[in-house]
Amino acid sequence: MSFTPIDHAARIAALDERLRSGELRCDALLFTDLIDIRWLTGFTGSNGIAVLRPGALTFGTDTRYGERATAETAASGAEVIAIQDRSRLREAMVDTLEGATEVGLDPTTTPHATWERFADDLPLVAVPSPVASARRHKDAAEIERIEVAARATDAALAEVEPILLAAADAPVTEADIRDELEYRMRRHGADDRSYDTIVASGPEHAARPHHEVCRRTLVEGDTVVIDVGALVEGYHSDMTRSYVIGTPTAQQCEVYELVRVAQSAGLDALRDGVAAAAVDAASRDVFVDAGYGDWYLHGTGHGVGLQIHEPPFHAATSDETIIAGDVVTIEPGLYRLGFGGIRIEDLAVVTGDGHRVLTNHPKSPLA
Amino acid sequence: MSFTPIDHAARIAALDERLRSGELRCDALLFTDLIDIRWLTGFTGSNGIAVLRPGALTFGTDTRYGERATAETAASGAEVIAIQDRSRLREAMVDTLEGATEVGLDPTTTPHATWERFADDLPLVAVPSPVASARRHKDAAEIERIEVAARATDAALAEVEPILLAAADAPVTEADIRDELEYRMRRHGADDRSYDTIVASGPEHAARPHHEVCRRTLVEGDTVVIDVGALVEGYHSDMTRSYVIGTPTAQQCEVYELVRVAQSAGLDALRDGVAAAAVDAASRDVFVDAGYGDWYLHGTGHGVGLQIHEPPFHAATSDETIIAGDVVTIEPGLYRLGFGGIRIEDLAVVTGDGHRVLTNHPKSPLA
Repeated sequence: MSFTPIDHAARIAALDERLRSGELRCDALLFTDLIDIRWLTGFTGSNGIAVLRPGALTFGTDTRYGERATAETAASGAEVIAIQDRSRLREAMVDTLEGATEVGLDPTTTPHATWERFADDLPLVAVPSPVASARRHKDAAEIERIEVAARATDAALAEVEPILLAAADAPVTEADIRDELEYRMRRHGADDRSYDTIVASGPEHAARPHHEVCRRTLVEGDTVVIDVGALVEGYHSDMTRSYVIGTPTAQQCEVYELVRVAQSAGLDALRDGVAAAAVDAASRDVFVDAGYGDWYLHGTGHGVGLQIHEPPFHAATSDETIIAGDVVTIEPGLYRLGFGGIRIEDLAVVTGDGHRVLTNHPKSPLA
Repeated sequence: MSFTPIDHAARIAALDERLRSGELRCDALLFTDLIDIRWLTGFTGSNGIAVLRPGALTFGTDTRYGERATAETAASGAEVIAIQDRSRLREAMVDTLEGATEVGLDPTTTPHATWERFADDLPLVAVPSPVASARRHKDAAEIERIEVAARATDAALAEVEPILLAAADAPVTEADIRDELEYRMRRHGADDRSYDTIVASGPEHAARPHHEVCRRTLVEGDTVVIDVGALVEGYHSDMTRSYVIGTPTAQQCEVYELVRVAQSAGLDALRDGVAAAAVDAASRDVFVDAGYGDWYLHGTGHGVGLQIHEPPFHAATSDETIIAGDVVTIEPGLYRLGFGGIRIEDLAVVTGDGHRVLTNHPKSPLA
């Protein structure tokens, strides 16, 4: 599969402009976080460091990655330095910063020992998450990758759903369902799963929003929450669907319908300029009004991109604003020990005039 | 599958003794690294912090994990604190350190911002990798888990090998082989893969020790390097086997035989008390003597446990000594652009009188 190239030059030009304008309160940026480095340069390996000065990007890595780094970072225009010895590589990167008076480094991702070593040689200043705001805006090339990931997830779940719905007659475990989903996402074009797939079943496991899959066999009457995503060219997808094994009870139908309505209300609220807390409230109010407020144990969603969880986070306490270009989940759910749980989650991109849902799998499997 | 319980109480008693003896040059230890925390307490979640003072272990996490943390850390005797709000949890952990005069924290794994926040309230001292030496010694319960992981890998490779060896007639890609291996390891008892499986084929890909799998179709004449491991209860396995698609050339046979001999020589050198550099030299000398020294691009092996790469590292420049209880790989290989590559890797535990190989899959697939 061939993708539209990522426009690294545009990203770097915009960051360069922020650097020159004084907005970042430093005259050079040092990057040690591999996700930020990938976003900036295109490098996908496991060892790298980048320096941005006005008009000049330098990328450093070890000799294992020399040739690959040059190929991957070509679109960024970075000068690549590949040196095997870690301290000599460090020195070479410090040399590129000669004359800088304030070198911005992210204290939230840089290990303390790394910070201290650089602080011996460089005038460091703390610049927390310098490209987080820029990373929020997903361009067409990024959305293309996320959509391919979402389609792989849709296709895998469509194949596995019949196995799940027949579980009352042909026993399967949580692990069986997970293994089939992860195998089949790759057959449908995913590079990998996006995160550890959640298959949470029955009165205890499904009641935990972040249950770890085990070898429990699904039985009639279980609620089952399936939370699954794919990874494509570094970009993630994320979706959840919920099921009942056998004939649902009246309460299971009631809870399912509440979650379906709350999820739809969250999506309806999703548009450019809305407060993230208002998106959360749109879903949450449905539960509170129905007397199920204390069954809702988490926020309504989060951003998705090169990381599976990234800003914005739409929780009741959020002070963020949703903006066009955000790719986010809307994923309300209800959980109660003894009952189990139901969660429904779509991925959507916020556009100039609303949003577009990227998850296509249907939401109405209840009998 | 049910495993011998891990003896967390013994680990904590030994660390407590090191703390009291003054060896660690502090009177309390603060842990933020989740692997160290798992080793110490048994907790497997994604948010936690631990404090050890003489005679008292405290574990803190958020309310998502309250019940699970209590269950998982029971064998460690930890007092569990579960608080949703991050800054209140931090304060509660700081309170457990009242009166401590030197609080050891690992600067190599703690983010700088985290270090600085604790330094506001606590007399921090840098204690790099405080349990690294203790983690090297694998006890019987740990080796049991690693062996189950190694057997799952053996079984998956035995099933996939026929597909690989038929590749000249029934085309498959690197990704196909990887997907089958990862799916089948789980069918044979693995919780997951240990790391991203490497399937590196042909004159370019196989020449890169850390190739990333892609959708290249295997063709007659290819060398293929398969590096695969499983994860069981947090513990890893690691093995590599190499193949030629179709009838091997004289040079392919020569290189394969050299690697087989070098791998066997590395294993022969592996025993309690030997220098890690001598284990590396045992394999490396075979290549150098045969005029292939510059085809060998990495060290001969590394420790394996809760991490896939952990001490000791047997490279030419290593100053470490191999000790009984180390679980390590022996994995020499030869690589050349245009030729491809051959690597053979076994996992072995160092015993009082030599070592025991944990990888059982045969090494002689060449025609």
